[in-house]
Amino acid sequence: MDRQECLSYLRNVATFELVAECKETRARAGLLHTAHGTVETPVFMPVGTQGTVKGLTQRDLADELDVRILLANTYHLYLRPGHELIRRMGGLHQFMSWPRAILTDSGGYQVFSLSGLRKITDGGVTFQSHLDGDRHVFTPESTVDVQMALGSDVMMVLDECPEYPVSHEYARESMERTLAWARAAFLHFRGKIAGQNTGQSLFPIVQGSMFPDLRRQCAEQVVALEADGYAIGGLSVGEPRPLSLEMVEATEPVLPSTRPRYAMGVGMPEELPEYVARGIDLMDCVLPSRNARNGCLFTSQGRVIIKHTRYKDDPRPVDEACGCYTCRTYSRAYLRHLFQAGEISYAVLATRHNIHRYLDIMREIRHAIVLGQFPKYLKAVRTVPVEVE
Amino acid sequence: MDRQECLSYLRNVATFELVAECKETRARAGLLHTAHGTVETPVFMPVGTQGTVKGLTQRDLADELDVRILLANTYHLYLRPGHELIRRMGGLHQFMSWPRAILTDSGGYQVFSLSGLRKITDGGVTFQSHLDGDRHVFTPESTVDVQMALGSDVMMVLDECPEYPVSHEYARESMERTLAWARAAFLHFRGKIAGQNTGQSLFPIVQGSMFPDLRRQCAEQVVALEADGYAIGGLSVGEPRPLSLEMVEATEPVLPSTRPRYAMGVGMPEELPEYVARGIDLMDCVLPSRNARNGCLFTSQGRVIIKHTRYKDDPRPVDEACGCYTCRTYSRAYLRHLFQAGEISYAVLATRHNIHRYLDIMREIRHAIVLGQFPKYLKAVRTVPVEVE
Repeated sequence: MDRQECLSYLRNVATFELVAECKETRARAGLLHTAHGTVETPVFMPVGTQGTVKGLTQRDLADELDVRILLANTYHLYLRPGHELIRRMGGLHQFMSWPRAILTDSGGYQVFSLSGLRKITDGGVTFQSHLDGDRHVFTPESTVDVQMALGSDVMMVLDECPEYPVSHEYARESMERTLAWARAAFLHFRGKIAGQNTGQSLFPIVQGSMFPDLRRQCAEQVVALEADGYAIGGLSVGEPRPLSLEMVEATEPVLPSTRPRYAMGVGMPEELPEYVARGIDLMDCVLPSRNARNGCLFTSQGRVIIKHTRYKDDPRPVDEACGCYTCRTYSRAYLRHLFQAGEISYAVLATRHNIHRYLDIMREIRHAIVLGQFPKYLKAVRTVPVEVE
Repeated sequence: MDRQECLSYLRNVATFELVAECKETRARAGLLHTAHGTVETPVFMPVGTQGTVKGLTQRDLADELDVRILLANTYHLYLRPGHELIRRMGGLHQFMSWPRAILTDSGGYQVFSLSGLRKITDGGVTFQSHLDGDRHVFTPESTVDVQMALGSDVMMVLDECPEYPVSHEYARESMERTLAWARAAFLHFRGKIAGQNTGQSLFPIVQGSMFPDLRRQCAEQVVALEADGYAIGGLSVGEPRPLSLEMVEATEPVLPSTRPRYAMGVGMPEELPEYVARGIDLMDCVLPSRNARNGCLFTSQGRVIIKHTRYKDDPRPVDEACGCYTCRTYSRAYLRHLFQAGEISYAVLATRHNIHRYLDIMREIRHAIVLGQFPKYLKAVRTVPVEVE
């Protein structure tokens, strides 16, 4: 690869640049360069399951919240409207009018959640659509094809995400299947892009349930794939939180520090700095948007459960320290009224706030890392109560 | 009243200024001055039943759509969160963070829709809440009190809105009750504001079902109240559309041309210019927002029923002639996908478009009146097909 090819390559796949590292923890600040813009890490990715973050417009996400990367779900988009339709419409970025970066999962997680409706074989997984019961097959190769049709910047390999708890034996068997699928996915992907520049990166996933030895083994094997980044899956599946963090601690030293690490499906606001302290660069979770809709608002002082009677005539914003449109404009009393009345506008305003809160946390974390004050920040946030007092 | 008092009075109640009149039709362009800004008429008021236009933020309404006046429903706000709570929160403008004008209905229409759950007496109407079955009473006086607590710029008197069809005898009896209630409401309101400037106007309502003689009689009687404006109620209750327009034609010549006329609860996009041609200045309807949510989008070329398969890969905006955020940003294919997936974001984007379309129609109408081209405009819009071809 000559210099020109190299620059072109760097512009078109997800490349990672380290900016600062914490001296006491494993935290680091970086830049993830994608074909759809640069993302400051550590980053939290809002979830746009069906090609939309529920209740927000793309302008809200870009202009107001300054989201740089979104997650979309391959399983949902594959079933409806279909990846071939999205390909015909110019890919997911164009289809949903989102010019910034997109990460898609492989759909594996959703399929494995369809207990009773799916069957695993070594070649892949057969499942029934939750929409109409139709039978479908996902293979390591087909999920790469689907994500290539979507045109996401970061694609994920098909993996098996075991429930918690499982035996060491099942966890090993499942982890080995995930590894074999990852190898098959990479072989297929590299075969398809040979000679072309698709601007897409594929990340393998470390599994191994709650067994540190399996996590380490899996990490060693996926690193051999020389990917642009690595994910840690199978967290937040019902295990106690210290165990999730322990699995990250077992995995992280094996992963190359020059590549971004993505902890899939985490976490609560108070967990974000904990994952970062253990070397995580990317996270995603439906919590800020789903909890918003259910009436749970995250603030710098803990959670506000908006339906509580105590807020019925509370003129204060959800979070006096928050600069989001919702907090700049509306009272807790008004939001409580909208929630009680079942108004869509409640979801719109609450989601905006919760996503803003998550992004604020990530900005605070990154700022602290860059300034060399992350250990102090970590200590301070550990004292914030869960609920507003 | 000296000059200073007069200016202060004009600043604080809804006063009306005629700007232009059509030479062939009864259409006119005007300015409605309220304590919360000036409204260009003819105007369409989006409906914010529970203190929010479903799916839109106040910023969307003010900054993007440039809505100058909203309608809110007294019945709903009285039941939840309660007018006394709203009064304590500084009134409805402050509670919902809406600095522009608000018109509230009296709640009568909603109460009369609760067939089986309400009972009319000469003193008012007893009804059961649709929320919890609790018994409540609305009187001409109490609905003024509730609206004074809300602090709306334009308040409506309690009226009886008979269903269609009713006998001439029932229509007369009902109309006379509405008249007696209007007189009681004005007596109460004027007694309460004596010596103070509340910045609120009260409009009486012309009823009389589909009988021109009753409409005329009712109009003559309400004009004697010397109100700041007059409403025509009891339209769009199931009657054929030519009959609604005929009722407006029977009423309008009786109303003073120096005061705004409000046709309550109308209408379809193609009806807006027809009402204006008959001398109407204000209209409101849930149609643009409700139909948006149900998948019916209004365009300059007719309706788009977004679920139709023909739109599944249609890359065009809903309306190529529309400048709203939705049309500037998203394709019919994407909106159809969001609709099919039941996404909140669909309602958000569709409502924005439909309200924008209604306001565009009103802008076109006003522009045509001011330029003396309204008859030509009316002729042209009468040829637009109902559905996109």
